[in-house]
Amino acid sequence: MAEPSVAAMPAAASVLERLYVVVMAGGSGTRFWPASRRERPKQLLELIADGPLLANTLDRLEGLVPLSRVFVVTAERLLEQTRAAVPALPPAHVIGEPIARNTAPCLGVAAAIAGAHRPDAIVALLPADHHVADPEAFRRALAAAAVASDGGRITTLGVVPTYPETGYGYIETRGAEATVGGAAHVDASAAEAPRDVVRFVEKPSLATAAEFLSGGRHLWNAGVFVGRADALLAAIATHLPALDEAARPLLALLSTLGPAALHAPALPAALSELFARAPAISIDHGIMEHLKDLRVVPLVAGWSDVGSWRSLLDFGRDDAGFVRGDVLAEDCKGCVLVSDGPTLAALGLRDVAVVAHADAVLVLPLDRSQDVRRLVDRLAAAGRGELL
Amino acid sequence: MAEPSVAAMPAAASVLERLYVVVMAGGSGTRFWPASRRERPKQLLELIADGPLLANTLDRLEGLVPLSRVFVVTAERLLEQTRAAVPALPPAHVIGEPIARNTAPCLGVAAAIAGAHRPDAIVALLPADHHVADPEAFRRALAAAAVASDGGRITTLGVVPTYPETGYGYIETRGAEATVGGAAHVDASAAEAPRDVVRFVEKPSLATAAEFLSGGRHLWNAGVFVGRADALLAAIATHLPALDEAARPLLALLSTLGPAALHAPALPAALSELFARAPAISIDHGIMEHLKDLRVVPLVAGWSDVGSWRSLLDFGRDDAGFVRGDVLAEDCKGCVLVSDGPTLAALGLRDVAVVAHADAVLVLPLDRSQDVRRLVDRLAAAGRGELL
Repeated sequence: MAEPSVAAMPAAASVLERLYVVVMAGGSGTRFWPASRRERPKQLLELIADGPLLANTLDRLEGLVPLSRVFVVTAERLLEQTRAAVPALPPAHVIGEPIARNTAPCLGVAAAIAGAHRPDAIVALLPADHHVADPEAFRRALAAAAVASDGGRITTLGVVPTYPETGYGYIETRGAEATVGGAAHVDASAAEAPRDVVRFVEKPSLATAAEFLSGGRHLWNAGVFVGRADALLAAIATHLPALDEAARPLLALLSTLGPAALHAPALPAALSELFARAPAISIDHGIMEHLKDLRVVPLVAGWSDVGSWRSLLDFGRDDAGFVRGDVLAEDCKGCVLVSDGPTLAALGLRDVAVVAHADAVLVLPLDRSQDVRRLVDRLAAAGRGELL
Repeated sequence: MAEPSVAAMPAAASVLERLYVVVMAGGSGTRFWPASRRERPKQLLELIADGPLLANTLDRLEGLVPLSRVFVVTAERLLEQTRAAVPALPPAHVIGEPIARNTAPCLGVAAAIAGAHRPDAIVALLPADHHVADPEAFRRALAAAAVASDGGRITTLGVVPTYPETGYGYIETRGAEATVGGAAHVDASAAEAPRDVVRFVEKPSLATAAEFLSGGRHLWNAGVFVGRADALLAAIATHLPALDEAARPLLALLSTLGPAALHAPALPAALSELFARAPAISIDHGIMEHLKDLRVVPLVAGWSDVGSWRSLLDFGRDDAGFVRGDVLAEDCKGCVLVSDGPTLAALGLRDVAVVAHADAVLVLPLDRSQDVRRLVDRLAAAGRGELL
């Protein structure tokens, strides 16, 4: 039986036409070297599906939020590549951060821009570089969060855990203890019922993660936050007054010009002021962990944060594991074999990542995926900037 | 104490000025793919020392045989690359085989050419693609073989085994049972005393190889043969009459024109006739195994046939194993890490070969080095000739 979509519900419809999405695409990092480089960070890579992760993130919104209500915030030096990765998005909807200041300033920008479009706008902040196997389920959860946040309470998405992951942060909830852990046991409507957030929990030990999994009250923090523009600005004013202060020139510009401010010559100066004076802190630490009335919508959608080469193994459909590009694999198991250039011929490998690019080749056991950074650090120390 | 060189002995001097060397550089093969290709076979690769193995082979003769008495026989399609690899050699000294017919025809060509220079020439046939750590010891052994063969008996070099290799052919000897196995126990003068050959032994089992090693009577067949031109031609006439027949046009041309025949327009036709009609058989099987009076000079010179990627491990001086090219290795042991193009970054690997070229990358466990051919066969079957 087909489930009714949230958008089809009368109460939801009036909320969803006020839903704006801001995608945080400022990430940099070394975990996907040699595919990722300073000028081509993870969100611009084509890793699992067709197209860059950022484009996958926008495609996931199709039918829920039109691109006229979607914005992308990235590093200023990545503006050109980012616009090229999402050519259907109006160029003025890709906004450059003059300096990196973690994610909290982006929340300010998002609330300000959406609020300039309409005071009762609801804003969803999404990471640009995650993978979701079931976009329809993701849209349902996002819509449910939008509806839930229309009353003024900020809402986050929490992934229903499927195994005791120790590398993620968790969100402890109350109000849905009947839903016992494991995605297979959760039906979609139960998954999308908002729960109250008790607290954020840092990366747990394996034993603790196993308790979380069986307890059914803990969800993975997916870094997705939804709230009314005015509620988000109020939360910033309360918990990060320095950011509130730093955002004033931008807010003034937007209140004077409305959405046209995105094309205004004064925009870069307002953004520079905001980022230069904003504290460098995450949305989680700076705001969400301090809220008493935060809610969370459980998400069952085959979510992954695509955190390392190893994570790609979950998406492998080849006997050899995850295989992408011009790869010839013979008697390989549990491997991640990726080529973006040279023909990669692999034989007799177990649990190994091989990533071949024209100018650099990486080979390591998958259980050491996190050590890519050691190699990148050594290349940096050796002055091999052309590879970074 | 410096040992007297063989060339310094009065008896040897008159022999050595009659010594000609013919290097067999017709090899093709897949064991060093992706470094080796159809148009760049192993002997043209720079694997261990500086320069191609063929150039190393010629350099090894320095001070013993001048290039005016050195010839290289290669495949006709490799003439240009081969001449480029040994630019100091007169171009006419690089002779092309019109078709591949194993090694026996090359013995006919060698004996004919050397005999045309002088009837009492002594010819040494050498493989082009071996490695020798101690060239001086190699020269002494070759000189000893030349002196030993001046009486008319053909002489081969046999490597004193250092471990129970099962991948080589062995030569059983008599006449030096006092020399007990293991190179460390053999002094150089004893090593160079010729022994009588009892028989050739095909690749042995490990148990048999261990017996050979401890018995002290078995040597590795290094594929090096030394004999007077007239003795070699007589052996061909006796054991390979079809080759004797096929070589007549070449012999006639050489006896008419002498060494100038190398520049004669009629040379290609004479070579074509020889190779078209010659039986395709090795020097070992076609001739040497049938000789009753063959002798062998033991060789202790750090010899390797460089048979696979794995064999390079013997020449590794890096913590990671054998490392060549732009390689960054972190916590790797017992590996062969070679790049001829992309930067190769390897971490946490054990006993693995990674070979990175601009257009192809190979990764396999070293104990499966022999399986490279399976990958090459699959590439061929897939129509990927550009990589072969």
